[in-house]
Amino acid sequence: MSSQLGQLFRISTWGESHGGGVGVVIDGCPPRIELSEADIQRDLDRRRPGQSEIVTPRDEKDEGRILSGVFEGKTLGTPICIAVTNKDARPESYREMETAFRPSHADFTYEAKYGIRNWQGGGRASARETIGRVAAAVVAKKVLAQFSPALEIVAYVKTIHELVADVDVERVKFEQVEANIVRCPDAAMAERMIEFIKQVRSDGDSVGGVIECVVRGVPAGLGEPVFDKLEAELAKAMLSLPATKGFEIGSGFAGTRMRGSEHNDAFRMEGERVRTTTNRSGGIQGGISNGEPIFFRVAFKPTATIFKPQQTVTTTGEDTELQARGRHDPCVLPRAVPMVEAMTALVLCDHALRQRAQMG
Amino acid sequence: MSSQLGQLFRISTWGESHGGGVGVVIDGCPPRIELSEADIQRDLDRRRPGQSEIVTPRDEKDEGRILSGVFEGKTLGTPICIAVTNKDARPESYREMETAFRPSHADFTYEAKYGIRNWQGGGRASARETIGRVAAAVVAKKVLAQFSPALEIVAYVKTIHELVADVDVERVKFEQVEANIVRCPDAAMAERMIEFIKQVRSDGDSVGGVIECVVRGVPAGLGEPVFDKLEAELAKAMLSLPATKGFEIGSGFAGTRMRGSEHNDAFRMEGERVRTTTNRSGGIQGGISNGEPIFFRVAFKPTATIFKPQQTVTTTGEDTELQARGRHDPCVLPRAVPMVEAMTALVLCDHALRQRAQMG
Amino acid sequence: MSSQLGQLFRISTWGESHGGGVGVVIDGCPPRIELSEADIQRDLDRRRPGQSEIVTPRDEKDEGRILSGVFEGKTLGTPICIAVTNKDARPESYREMETAFRPSHADFTYEAKYGIRNWQGGGRASARETIGRVAAAVVAKKVLAQFSPALEIVAYVKTIHELVADVDVERVKFEQVEANIVRCPDAAMAERMIEFIKQVRSDGDSVGGVIECVVRGVPAGLGEPVFDKLEAELAKAMLSLPATKGFEIGSGFAGTRMRGSEHNDAFRMEGERVRTTTNRSGGIQGGISNGEPIFFRVAFKPTATIFKPQQTVTTTGEDTELQARGRHDPCVLPRAVPMVEAMTALVLCDHALRQRAQMG
Amino acid sequence: MSSQLGQLFRISTWGESHGGGVGVVIDGCPPRIELSEADIQRDLDRRRPGQSEIVTPRDEKDEGRILSGVFEGKTLGTPICIAVTNKDARPESYREMETAFRPSHADFTYEAKYGIRNWQGGGRASARETIGRVAAAVVAKKVLAQFSPALEIVAYVKTIHELVADVDVERVKFEQVEANIVRCPDAAMAERMIEFIKQVRSDGDSVGGVIECVVRGVPAGLGEPVFDKLEAELAKAMLSLPATKGFEIGSGFAGTRMRGSEHNDAFRMEGERVRTTTNRSGGIQGGISNGEPIFFRVAFKPTATIFKPQQTVTTTGEDTELQARGRHDPCVLPRAVPMVEAMTALVLCDHALRQRAQMG
Repeated sequence: MSSQLGQLFRISTWGESHGGGVGVVIDGCPPRIELSEADIQRDLDRRRPGQSEIVTPRDEKDEGRILSGVFEGKTLGTPICIAVTNKDARPESYREMETAFRPSHADFTYEAKYGIRNWQGGGRASARETIGRVAAAVVAKKVLAQFSPALEIVAYVKTIHELVADVDVERVKFEQVEANIVRCPDAAMAERMIEFIKQVRSDGDSVGGVIECVVRGVPAGLGEPVFDKLEAELAKAMLSLPATKGFEIGSGFAGTRMRGSEHNDAFRMEGERVRTTTNRSGGIQGGISNGEPIFFRVAFKPTATIFKPQQTVTTTGEDTELQARGRHDPCVLPRAVPMVEAMTALVLCDHALRQRAQMG
Repeated sequence: MSSQLGQLFRISTWGESHGGGVGVVIDGCPPRIELSEADIQRDLDRRRPGQSEIVTPRDEKDEGRILSGVFEGKTLGTPICIAVTNKDARPESYREMETAFRPSHADFTYEAKYGIRNWQGGGRASARETIGRVAAAVVAKKVLAQFSPALEIVAYVKTIHELVADVDVERVKFEQVEANIVRCPDAAMAERMIEFIKQVRSDGDSVGGVIECVVRGVPAGLGEPVFDKLEAELAKAMLSLPATKGFEIGSGFAGTRMRGSEHNDAFRMEGERVRTTTNRSGGIQGGISNGEPIFFRVAFKPTATIFKPQQTVTTTGEDTELQARGRHDPCVLPRAVPMVEAMTALVLCDHALRQRAQMG
Repeated sequence: MSSQLGQLFRISTWGESHGGGVGVVIDGCPPRIELSEADIQRDLDRRRPGQSEIVTPRDEKDEGRILSGVFEGKTLGTPICIAVTNKDARPESYREMETAFRPSHADFTYEAKYGIRNWQGGGRASARETIGRVAAAVVAKKVLAQFSPALEIVAYVKTIHELVADVDVERVKFEQVEANIVRCPDAAMAERMIEFIKQVRSDGDSVGGVIECVVRGVPAGLGEPVFDKLEAELAKAMLSLPATKGFEIGSGFAGTRMRGSEHNDAFRMEGERVRTTTNRSGGIQGGISNGEPIFFRVAFKPTATIFKPQQTVTTTGEDTELQARGRHDPCVLPRAVPMVEAMTALVLCDHALRQRAQMG
Repeated sequence: MSSQLGQLFRISTWGESHGGGVGVVIDGCPPRIELSEADIQRDLDRRRPGQSEIVTPRDEKDEGRILSGVFEGKTLGTPICIAVTNKDARPESYREMETAFRPSHADFTYEAKYGIRNWQGGGRASARETIGRVAAAVVAKKVLAQFSPALEIVAYVKTIHELVADVDVERVKFEQVEANIVRCPDAAMAERMIEFIKQVRSDGDSVGGVIECVVRGVPAGLGEPVFDKLEAELAKAMLSLPATKGFEIGSGFAGTRMRGSEHNDAFRMEGERVRTTTNRSGGIQGGISNGEPIFFRVAFKPTATIFKPQQTVTTTGEDTELQARGRHDPCVLPRAVPMVEAMTALVLCDHALRQRAQMG
């Protein structure tokens, strides 16, 4: 199913950017987990528009309401539906999109696939769809905390265009990430990034970058061999986010320029625990976590919406020119950080339940 | 399920590198498609060991037998089971692995996960598991040919270590790839790559690289929005191959260093057809094919097995040293080319059926 | 997943009887199908409480709101979320259930499974959960109409307790069913059933019966061999409705008392069409429809809630006595008729899409 | 998928009655469970043809070979492939079926669905397909034994035609069932059944009946609310067996003729344990086991193959007459007993793993 993710902790998102709203249904959540709307709101606030001067000014409070599956503050084990109403929708800003396809958006491909599309905003392809993912991930993180209290997911902006942050995956902390509006834990570089994004916006242009994510405290043994390798599931989850173009784990593409004798992670005992001396594997071997930190990088392209005239075609097959109006992010990365974190939590939670099902 | 892939054209692989054999069951295949064991053998021969002087000398003919689902040379629409017997297994070469974990292999993680493992060879983590994938993909390619007779999948070695081939994704042909044993369509570079791999082997070392794959002739509209985006499914499929560390599509990681105004693919009419002037998107927008060539790259790490002593630990928790014996590829890429092609075919075939289910 | 049904036309229901509301998300619906809230309301009204003097007086309008997946009156091909708010909830009527388990309800088993339950009404086990099914089936019936315009699903009350209606499965019409409040197309028997149910209610007791359903106009070829046989899927769908205890198709249990020579359905040509002279098979052979009417029967037990004191136990393990308050159906069958019809439509729609996926 | 069953303990069967063989792949099996080919053979022998004078004389040893997933006598946690070769195939006995459809078989519907069929025997619709199920269930029973050592599944022939056995579901034992060739634990009635089946065979006719199955020792809490109710999953599993026409649990169809005050199962404490005074529910309430014995009945029609001339049509649309040759069961029930037992084990095992996944 196109709108479902997970084998056991399964989420189904629904909704378009303009219309009744967006939301998610979570099936398979363990019972008796404390959950409130406030818990969910904390993360929705981290992804919502209008949160800072470098993101889109669309004014949505994105208030998540829990419609089912929770009773007296605890999960029931039954489906949890969380809904957010669309409030600051301005479909009139998209009137041109009714008849012309925005370059590098999904307008043309939705039309080609379905023969119909909601042209008011991105419809289903809008990043508003990720609200359901972020809300569900709040629950996933609570489930994970029961399995591995020490488990810690930290995602952050690693690069913006050519600006590269210096970050230590072993030590970077959530608080450092949240300390600035671009969500880069290298404070000095964060300032340069913010200035750069403002400059790009004033040019009517947009810019991309790389988000890195590290997960520490994952027990060895999580993930499945063959098709549902942990890195494969993470890759899919990340590439399912809007605007992504690449994924690499551990040594990644750079590792292809090493020899085996340089690349292999030697094992050594650290007390009772098997560790590796290096971590080119990125914490996963044969699709299964080895207990070392899992870290990976996700490439985000520059936002497709820019405020310059662009060549395109109409729905009736004529060449034309289009200039965006409306409200848009000059750079999606600051708001994508909680999305990457959310997708990571969703994948790990599903695999924790899968592991428990098979291995007890 | 860890050993299943696909929603509608669903494959289930089974088997270990040492044991009764390996194989695949394909469920959901359309009926009345001509299929013979010879069809399957052609691709199995392209991935089998012992095929050239730069791959492992393990002598397996890998003869695929069709056990069900085919009658009088045609598919019945019922499950197709294809099995290959393991013949040249030499478990005694792996005796050390019973008590020590090979660095950067899956020995330790399988033990951590299952509390048991088949230490004779890679077991389930062996690349022999991909036999079932390659066999199933022969069927997938036949199904795809019914949907899109012009559809063409070409995978090839793009880089080995620091050696980079010059290839035009719009024109590269299967025959150019198969013209040399390293499967690089840049003939001059192919020779250098072959020499380099031989050198690495004689050093007792190993080396990695990047495989690129292009799919031409994909109709617009294939792929699903949200979680099962076509690039997300391809990413998962590729990262499910042994030894992979990264995936990027279209502009990939390099695209993060462009501005939106440079990166966007303008639309233009070409006769009746909507085309793009550039193809940074890599043929997919919003998770759905736009009719342009789909192309992507997959990073393969250097083979974990090297013929040098390496530091590791025993299954009982003591530091030790291990040196591989047995037969291994100094570089997996030449044999991984048909695997990348196979995974591409499997993903596209599944999405072709999904598209037909929903859209007719 | 416990709350999902269907491979390709997949529904996910959510919600408890007391709480934010109930609803459904439909994933996989074909695009460009006309759909309005009025369409959905027609069937919701047929299952809603308070519709007649022989059902529960709980006063719910059950107004279905479409939150996503529809644009300008047509389906988009994206998930359709339909929600109904709980309005006339009276949790105080259930206060005793907080500490005692109602006999033959799901109170005890939910507690045993989850260690928590929403004791206000039936929670997730309430028949209110079927609102999402009925709403989704409105969409399913529209999809089916595109595949088979002649397809017709007619469900009706066949027996109440020992009262058996005389109905001809070849000819019975929807209008005859809807002509009376008990939904029995045998008008004379319907009157007796209504009187009987009133009598049972005045006794503070409850009663069950059998619903029969016939589907005419199903093309031959629908359904899958092996596990997803059409009758197997129907059996599961029916047994997933609250209060059901049995399912039989065609000759059913009575057929076990025939010999093969009596039971077999001989084939004969009727013009160009292959027909059978009898229909003991109930329209399905080998799991696949043969073009004859599909008909089956579903057993519904007497409603568990009765207004007499009953022996039970408390949540803390003491014997006690419980007498129900609140509002309840003395007989679920009149309102279950649209549920049986809905489940039939959902199964057939899913199989129509599956058939198209594999066979084109 | 048509040939797959189970969410977590997932089996994929493959194979036709005439061809390379039949088998199964089990994915999701827990590791470190002792498993040998001898274990599997015991149950295959109980379903194999030629086992007694009242079943088909087709001479198949049905020797199950484990091709993967087991190492040194224990499961690895990876897919277990079990294969059986077809040996005593006599396709020439089926030559007439190439051009004519057998009444009440799947010949016509397979042709209608796929436009092709293996006319040598029943192909995929043959009861030989159930070999894979029975083999997989051997593994399922071993998994269940880890969850609930006291769990006991006993299936048996309850009726043949109008002959009804007297059996106490609380006490009936496996040994009583296996004590005679018709598998009816009422020894006196078993003799009459055997004589009756012999008589029917000598008439060239066939006969059906009802199999009852009881599961004792199921812990409370197994099963899922809503669509995957335990009885719904059992109903599907049973109706997926060839020749089945009905399923009822607990009070079943007879329960529809009771009042709620008679039908409800009062709760009472038995020491620390919550019990019910009656068991009309059949051990399941709201889709979830309550700890009482689960018992249900399955209707099997008379075997479709009879040795009398029957009216039918040819594949080219002409009326004709057909008389069966070949080897067939005059009554499927004795061999169906291990199949019902197997399907029960498969459903319970899957739900045990699902329960562990969500609840720990």
